[in-house]
Amino acid sequence: MRALYFDKNLSFRSDYPMPKPKCHEALIRVTMAGICNTDLEIMKGYMDFKGVPGHEFVGIVEKSEENKWEGRRVTGEINIGCGICSYCLSRMKNHCPNRSVLGIMKKDGVFADYITLPVRNLHIIPDSITDEEAVFIEPLAAAFEISQQVNIKPGDKVCVLGDGKLGLLVGQVISLTGCSLTVIGHHREKLNILGEIGIDTFLKNEIKDKFDFVVDCTGSPTGLKEAIALVKPKGKIILKTTVAKREQVDLNTLVVNEVDIIGSRCGPFAPAVRALKKNLIDVQPLISKTFSLDDGIEAFKYASEKGVLKVVLKQPGES
Amino acid sequence: MRALYFDKNLSFRSDYPMPKPKCHEALIRVTMAGICNTDLEIMKGYMDFKGVPGHEFVGIVEKSEENKWEGRRVTGEINIGCGICSYCLSRMKNHCPNRSVLGIMKKDGVFADYITLPVRNLHIIPDSITDEEAVFIEPLAAAFEISQQVNIKPGDKVCVLGDGKLGLLVGQVISLTGCSLTVIGHHREKLNILGEIGIDTFLKNEIKDKFDFVVDCTGSPTGLKEAIALVKPKGKIILKTTVAKREQVDLNTLVVNEVDIIGSRCGPFAPAVRALKKNLIDVQPLISKTFSLDDGIEAFKYASEKGVLKVVLKQPGES
Repeated sequence: MRALYFDKNLSFRSDYPMPKPKCHEALIRVTMAGICNTDLEIMKGYMDFKGVPGHEFVGIVEKSEENKWEGRRVTGEINIGCGICSYCLSRMKNHCPNRSVLGIMKKDGVFADYITLPVRNLHIIPDSITDEEAVFIEPLAAAFEISQQVNIKPGDKVCVLGDGKLGLLVGQVISLTGCSLTVIGHHREKLNILGEIGIDTFLKNEIKDKFDFVVDCTGSPTGLKEAIALVKPKGKIILKTTVAKREQVDLNTLVVNEVDIIGSRCGPFAPAVRALKKNLIDVQPLISKTFSLDDGIEAFKYASEKGVLKVVLKQPGES
Repeated sequence: MRALYFDKNLSFRSDYPMPKPKCHEALIRVTMAGICNTDLEIMKGYMDFKGVPGHEFVGIVEKSEENKWEGRRVTGEINIGCGICSYCLSRMKNHCPNRSVLGIMKKDGVFADYITLPVRNLHIIPDSITDEEAVFIEPLAAAFEISQQVNIKPGDKVCVLGDGKLGLLVGQVISLTGCSLTVIGHHREKLNILGEIGIDTFLKNEIKDKFDFVVDCTGSPTGLKEAIALVKPKGKIILKTTVAKREQVDLNTLVVNEVDIIGSRCGPFAPAVRALKKNLIDVQPLISKTFSLDDGIEAFKYASEKGVLKVVLKQPGES
């Protein structure tokens, strides 16, 4: 099959071996895949990953031990827990110490014609959701993780830092709480995507306010430092940014002002599916360009250019 | 009056001017005062404080606009809010941006014969609590702040890092929750204070476990790093340590493991008074030595020596 393969460099392979479903795994033909910032970080060595990257996808189940899955259009949760440890048994498989992670850790990912995933990881995509929307379910779930972790009240003042792919999704999800929301970024044209749906946006340095919650979606070494400067005493910072080298921050301020920093990663898929089905989130303007899997190398180059949002790979299947 | 005065150096003054109570303030004769780590940090320049340091005290109200206070034995909360800002009006005067803090910021402290404090800051000390116990109410309140911020459940595994004054108080307070508690320190003789009341203690490096909560009471640049290594995924670190220079930590781990860091400072006095009244906390073994105010300079020198716990200044009043 075709696949993008990473081992220090990314290469296109036309003869990559088909994955073989293990026990309880389905074989899935990928129809669409999204390039995430994590994929771009992997290209720089993050996670020391070797194999087929990619974890945002839509696909059709080609083969499964359970008949009900075959032919269904699905996406899937990316953390594959062992199923038997205390984390897996406490609904925390995302933190299973023995987990593999689709296209990120010990498991080939979705920039390929086929993948395998345990059926317990799969979510059926309702017909009213397009592939272009469904490919955002995984990052949208990561945005919903914030509401799983903290209780943002309608009376709260919230700031989202960052106008990249994640910031634009997080902004939309948080605005559903009814809170007073401000999204701060560097790019007027990206912020306008949110401005058009009634979310207040500001370019950096335009703002002097303090917030109950600040979400760092900058992906930048200075994001946390900016968040600390914007959060009220007793406020909370939700930290989404992982970076190789972060600018040192004054953690004494956290103690004196009793601020919380809350690490936040993968989230629940079901709310993301529901929100897309109800048209509560507009992901269409977030797609910058669509490539075919054959042009995957070019797609990665384009995705890493400044100002580009989501790049998707479309893999029209052979029937 | 007598006072210890700090302005780059600490000096003993026998002719320091008596403080004059402002509106709603009581004049209090200090009978006992405790030297806190924050006081030792102030000697090194922390907070750029100039004046009479000290904030842990027991005293007798000598003068107050309200008769009911005169002659009462009291201690007092150290944050003096403006009373009219949004923080003061939301029961968060400890975070009032215009606050002064007894012996720490814009307000002379307790290493003196007399202090003034707003009566709303005062707490009457029940007769059954000795001065030696009552002088611990302020740091004990800081220990109770943890339970104000997080819900430690009886089934949780908790680790307190640090066997200094605060660590020994925090350990005792947290053990009241019924949780599985481990206190880790560097000094066998200090840890034994907790061992004798049935708390599990370990010297560093003896422990390979992971914990739901880790409290950093080390006061050390490496405390947070050690806490991150000991906390479970989805666990919480309570950060009590403020240090001039903290060892850099890997905050990506926080994101991937969805760990929270919770800054924690001053706490509620009432639970601290109740706990001492019920003999739930044993503070007696924490007093290393008692000095008179006249020997305050010597007391500070002794307090900063390795292995020393609480040093108190006793100011027997003239009648």
